[in-house]
Amino acid sequence: MELWYTENHTEEARFSIKIDKQLVSLQSDFQRIDIFESGEFGRILTLDGYLMVTEKDEFIYHDMITHVPMAVNPSISKVLVIGAGDGGTIRELLRYPNIEHIDMVEIDEEVVRVCKEFLPQTACGLSDPKVHLYFEDGLRYVRGKVGEYDLILVDSTDPFGPGEGLFTKEFYGNCYRALKEDGILVNQHESMYYSSYAASMTRAHKRIQDTFPIARVYQAHIPTYPSGHWLFGFASKKYDPIKDLKAEAWNKLGLKTRYYNTELHLGSFAIPNYIKEQLEELV
Amino acid sequence: MELWYTENHTEEARFSIKIDKQLVSLQSDFQRIDIFESGEFGRILTLDGYLMVTEKDEFIYHDMITHVPMAVNPSISKVLVIGAGDGGTIRELLRYPNIEHIDMVEIDEEVVRVCKEFLPQTACGLSDPKVHLYFEDGLRYVRGKVGEYDLILVDSTDPFGPGEGLFTKEFYGNCYRALKEDGILVNQHESMYYSSYAASMTRAHKRIQDTFPIARVYQAHIPTYPSGHWLFGFASKKYDPIKDLKAEAWNKLGLKTRYYNTELHLGSFAIPNYIKEQLEELV
Repeated sequence: MELWYTENHTEEARFSIKIDKQLVSLQSDFQRIDIFESGEFGRILTLDGYLMVTEKDEFIYHDMITHVPMAVNPSISKVLVIGAGDGGTIRELLRYPNIEHIDMVEIDEEVVRVCKEFLPQTACGLSDPKVHLYFEDGLRYVRGKVGEYDLILVDSTDPFGPGEGLFTKEFYGNCYRALKEDGILVNQHESMYYSSYAASMTRAHKRIQDTFPIARVYQAHIPTYPSGHWLFGFASKKYDPIKDLKAEAWNKLGLKTRYYNTELHLGSFAIPNYIKEQLEELV
Repeated sequence: MELWYTENHTEEARFSIKIDKQLVSLQSDFQRIDIFESGEFGRILTLDGYLMVTEKDEFIYHDMITHVPMAVNPSISKVLVIGAGDGGTIRELLRYPNIEHIDMVEIDEEVVRVCKEFLPQTACGLSDPKVHLYFEDGLRYVRGKVGEYDLILVDSTDPFGPGEGLFTKEFYGNCYRALKEDGILVNQHESMYYSSYAASMTRAHKRIQDTFPIARVYQAHIPTYPSGHWLFGFASKKYDPIKDLKAEAWNKLGLKTRYYNTELHLGSFAIPNYIKEQLEELV
């Protein structure tokens, strides 16, 4: 017998992973949650059938969403994380001794419960006393906050389904208000290679640019995500992600990372012409 | 009816593309050659079932194998290209007015014939008078050459099958001798994400380091190649690919490129820690 999980990256391109067994399959109030065991990629979390995390390459995504802003402002102490039910982003944040308080807002409590049980590799920090968990809509949570956070990480699902509101102009405006004067917003920005994603991310980027004085895009190689060429948005009231990189300070922390380094930090903002052109299309 | 082309990236990971029709399928003296028509990726060339070129993203590979060395030494005038039967590398080289002479050594004449007929997007320069075609083994061709070339591009297939000899110590030594005093060798270096490729590329990189005083690795996002994270090797007798980048001179040429730019040139050499560690393993 062979068992294969397949994700349709478009209607005409598919990525398939051989599965040893299905560990969990349930329907929460928000989405279908599955965890698979595989040989090549270790355990895999999918939501509504879309691949979210594999044990083999989750380190790439979590390095890049966390260490890029932390190396620009190593003094960050209060963080809001939206989404991130698998816990990988929290695990990386907890490595910084300066971080004193993390509010994590995940709409779906079942994702956290399942990851704590089946994905300890990422979920290991979710019970840390610095982490305050709120199971509610991130869009609603951030609405009333003013000047509270040094950093907001939007570790969302795709721009459709439960995560849709996290790509709206209203949401970015609320994040701006929730941030301190030197606050940073990082959000996952999907890929620009397949046109279905490109259009919605071009719109999202435009909305961030309209809201924040500094708005840049950076990239990582994440092999199990559609196209493998994944983008993140870096927006800030004050810090330029390149000029304000504190490479020496970050390297002094002595954090061992498997993907991120401060040279790669700079390199990740050098994006290909075809993506630059797509991002500027609606500007 | 649905028709799908599938490439096994490993025994447990597959990438599949929906096909409109098969345009060519033949067995040459060296390999099976297929060309497919697809909606998402345009025309696709496969050799022995392995995806070599798609019309949608061939520009990424061909930009990165060509413009990186050309921006380090814009005076390059005589080039040896090994492999490259699809012609994309030649097309990019022919955009440089300084290039006067290109020797192209492709083992399989049938690949060139088929690409000229079915892939004019890449093959368009193969009949240019500056291009001298040799249908023979690249390993043998380069053996007798001494101090002839400014640049050698090894645009080979994978490190097994007909391209195997192009990853040996003997071959790299012959390339060294065939290059002028300021010569550059660029070769496609596969991906380090899947362990089957990683081992052979770590060996190949070690052999290049043993042969050339300067040997660096750079990367590109090529979505249709295994893992999407593709590496190239830059080896030189004299030029450092970062310190010796002639950004201003290259930009003055006014070449329009869809992937490459001189900022990305620098960024492409900033590789993730996990790849650095793998490359250093055998050193």
